[in-house]
Amino acid sequence: MHALGMHLLVELRNCNSKVLNDLKKVEEILVAAAKAAKATIIKTHFHKFSPFGISGVVVIAESHLAVHTWPEYGYAAVDIFTCGDTLKPEIAANSLIEKFNSKQPSIIEVKRGVLSTKGNVKLPHKATKGDPDAYARAKELQMVP
Amino acid sequence: MHALGMHLLVELRNCNSKVLNDLKKVEEILVAAAKAAKATIIKTHFHKFSPFGISGVVVIAESHLAVHTWPEYGYAAVDIFTCGDTLKPEIAANSLIEKFNSKQPSIIEVKRGVLSTKGNVKLPHKATKGDPDAYARAKELQMVP
Repeated sequence: MHALGMHLLVELRNCNSKVLNDLKKVEEILVAAAKAAKATIIKTHFHKFSPFGISGVVVIAESHLAVHTWPEYGYAAVDIFTCGDTLKPEIAANSLIEKFNSKQPSIIEVKRGVLSTKGNVKLPHKATKGDPDAYARAKELQMVP
Repeated sequence: MHALGMHLLVELRNCNSKVLNDLKKVEEILVAAAKAAKATIIKTHFHKFSPFGISGVVVIAESHLAVHTWPEYGYAAVDIFTCGDTLKPEIAANSLIEKFNSKQPSIIEVKRGVLSTKGNVKLPHKATKGDPDAYARAKELQMVP
């Protein structure tokens, strides 16, 4: 079924704990993963907690990446949420697995925004004149001229 | 089973499209949801796309909230990722459903960081001296004195 968004829930177990507790490295790794997947980075924000643990988000034109690390457990939770056809989230996931040196990774893939169950109707990522229904709705809402 | 994080994947269908396309309102609604759930807000970032659609993240001390809206489809994808025992993510979810006026919401609850399958062992949110194993590991990594 077609979905507006693709969301990877990445569980990174048995990682390198020192890397998980290094603010600069965690940010570098997330940014590199986003770039490897051809994402357009809009903004990043990373924060270190006391006594340890890092949270970070990378806002991309195609949605977002988020990470939360628990160095004391060698664990990081990563989300890779993407939309559109050009970005390859699995490339970002593989980059993260490698750089955090996770020896026990797992990924759940979730489709977000499955708006039609009537066959495999593909909704355009953004409504355009090529999609009359969505365009009409957008026009009615005065979102387009 | 005990998990380090709790993640709600909130699908908001049939929302008020005008609200979904209003940058200020979307940010207000997400911030209000985080506050209603007793989250500690660290940083927010919201971005409007052309011709429409908004992405936003609220970084909280207990992890994050993220939203992506498709006004032309009346749809928003929201993630509420929390850790610790004090925050109630379901309160945030209900606040969002109400304020986006979603007539067809759904929620998937995912446990993140299930590190032990041997019974219902509760891992402390942050390793302390009360949790000798994690504390010893943290000490080995020179994360604590």
